[in-house]
Amino acid sequence: MNKPQTQTNFYAVIPAGGVGSRLWPLSRAKSPKFLLDFTGSGRSLLRETFERVSKVADPQRILVVTGRDHADAVQGQLAMLESKNLLREPSPKDSTAAIALAAAVVLRRDPNAIIGSFAADHVIRNPELFETAVTEAVRLAESGKIVTIGIKPTSASSAYGYIRAGASIAKVSDEVESFEAAEFVEKPAPALAANYFESGEYLWNAGMFVAKAQVLLDVLEQSQPQLHADLLLLAEQLNKSAATGSARTEFTETMDATWSGLKAIAIDYAIAEPAAATGLVTVVSAELDWTDIGDFDTLAELSDPRDALTHSGSGTVVNQDSSGLVVSKTDRVIAVSGLENVVIVDTPDALLVTTREQAQKVKAVVADLTKRGLDEVL
Amino acid sequence: MNKPQTQTNFYAVIPAGGVGSRLWPLSRAKSPKFLLDFTGSGRSLLRETFERVSKVADPQRILVVTGRDHADAVQGQLAMLESKNLLREPSPKDSTAAIALAAAVVLRRDPNAIIGSFAADHVIRNPELFETAVTEAVRLAESGKIVTIGIKPTSASSAYGYIRAGASIAKVSDEVESFEAAEFVEKPAPALAANYFESGEYLWNAGMFVAKAQVLLDVLEQSQPQLHADLLLLAEQLNKSAATGSARTEFTETMDATWSGLKAIAIDYAIAEPAAATGLVTVVSAELDWTDIGDFDTLAELSDPRDALTHSGSGTVVNQDSSGLVVSKTDRVIAVSGLENVVIVDTPDALLVTTREQAQKVKAVVADLTKRGLDEVL
Repeated sequence: MNKPQTQTNFYAVIPAGGVGSRLWPLSRAKSPKFLLDFTGSGRSLLRETFERVSKVADPQRILVVTGRDHADAVQGQLAMLESKNLLREPSPKDSTAAIALAAAVVLRRDPNAIIGSFAADHVIRNPELFETAVTEAVRLAESGKIVTIGIKPTSASSAYGYIRAGASIAKVSDEVESFEAAEFVEKPAPALAANYFESGEYLWNAGMFVAKAQVLLDVLEQSQPQLHADLLLLAEQLNKSAATGSARTEFTETMDATWSGLKAIAIDYAIAEPAAATGLVTVVSAELDWTDIGDFDTLAELSDPRDALTHSGSGTVVNQDSSGLVVSKTDRVIAVSGLENVVIVDTPDALLVTTREQAQKVKAVVADLTKRGLDEVL
Repeated sequence: MNKPQTQTNFYAVIPAGGVGSRLWPLSRAKSPKFLLDFTGSGRSLLRETFERVSKVADPQRILVVTGRDHADAVQGQLAMLESKNLLREPSPKDSTAAIALAAAVVLRRDPNAIIGSFAADHVIRNPELFETAVTEAVRLAESGKIVTIGIKPTSASSAYGYIRAGASIAKVSDEVESFEAAEFVEKPAPALAANYFESGEYLWNAGMFVAKAQVLLDVLEQSQPQLHADLLLLAEQLNKSAATGSARTEFTETMDATWSGLKAIAIDYAIAEPAAATGLVTVVSAELDWTDIGDFDTLAELSDPRDALTHSGSGTVVNQDSSGLVVSKTDRVIAVSGLENVVIVDTPDALLVTTREQAQKVKAVVADLTKRGLDEVL
């Protein structure tokens, strides 16, 4: 892993939090989506993310923040991950707590630390552009900016938030260019998404942020002072436990109590939007072949051709005039006849049948299962 | 089983032949649909048919014609069926061979035998009307007529053949009346079916025939002389084997060879239509609550209400905005979201997902499975 190009003050954090209940019954409480292989690569989304990030950050400076219950599985998948870089959340507290805790931890190791945050469950099929974009983002972050990497949209999707690009800062290549970030906007309605797409001014917000750890925490101190104070305290305690020779950075009971009182808030609200309002944010536009596997519709999008019935997994599928996605984790024969855009997910103890259009509603199915107490399949 | 009203010369035959491949993966080569419980009664369609027919024919005079491979299962389900009344077909040869063989067998027992043929896989929810209709049919058959029981249509179905009723013969009750049978017509296109339904002159052809065995065979002799001759010979040999003390009526190798050369033809073509053309056929119209469970669409029809998602079998079903039919033979959790008129059939080794509209095409799925050599699920 000889990476002369990685900067010694660049740290990456991979928040690996969400179960991904829209991907039930593949994702379960005990096997969240980032631990699963959705691309057929033989590697989990987390592992693919770690390997991609290893091209821009030294593996010794990559942190993963995950739930305590998943920590062993994460460590098992990532041999290069150092024990002290695995932060174990006692409970989910959204992205600000996870990322800012990591920022506070690395800040104590290096006052000049730059930190980049990259979700554990994204797929990027042209990683070389990712490297170029991150390198540019790190360069811009050196000057004190909060840099987000925006994806050049390929459709008028209403599944993502958008970033409006302002004045150009630097053109790195045909595919990578940096701009002032004029505005962050939430997931738009389809008509508005079409406007955004046609204007050419908007980029998808993929939640990738690069900034000096100190800058991130300064913005947080302004916007969420209590959360900031609690996280600094927790980082200090974690670093102490690591310094006293414990390889693992474990929370004590007192720290658990502090953590459980943290405000759960997304980083877009706590940091990106307030910073953008003060002109502190820069966006690096990149033509990434990027997918946020949020549900079975986006999972199906990864497959070609679009009008076929895609089958991943084991078993035998017999298709008669159907399109969509079959994911099989059993050796059963699955026959599908006369259904368009169907989604069939076959596992030993649970079967899901829905459509690509309804893919978002799988979350409600899981809510229903929870309400009924069918914990054994959650 | 004291049935004073059953005539001592009335014999019933239940042809139990078809696998019912449109009901795969419930029906299989080794467990054809007539051996399965589709109504949730705890009894197979065959057993229900036998019990219904027992009200009009003495159980000692009920014959079942089935495939050699299914004979043991049939005998296991029907304790009242006498061994000599179980005819084992070496191979499927359509309805004429099955019914006319039974007619020839009973004719050798009783020259005045009247025989009624009733399919093994029909559901009748008002059996008392069935009794009335059969009693009237037997009365008319005494005079040498071939009598068919026609179902008063409740919709303009294009899934059934129709019988046009001519002049009234006798009104038995508000629900049962006999007519000359003017014409047999095949399954009509939807527009024509609507005409038939509106005219009020047409009845569904449920394939139920009652006639003197001698009359049936005389018509067959005219229309299919070779088939007639072969069947008479086979019946004679079967009766001989029964007479020599063998409880089972088994085919010998020579008889197998004769059987394999038989013409496979439906009784409608070989007997009903030729007989109708010469004015020999009478139809008893009955307002039977009748279902021919031909596919998953008709199976779904048995359930109320129509716009819900019906679940039969084991397992747990979670329904979100879906309608149709789920049949479960496993204990898995099945979640269905956003699908109208869906059909999901979940068995340990095979899963079918289709729609009620596509239900007829399940036969093609089975053909595909056969072509691929997936015999283990056929």
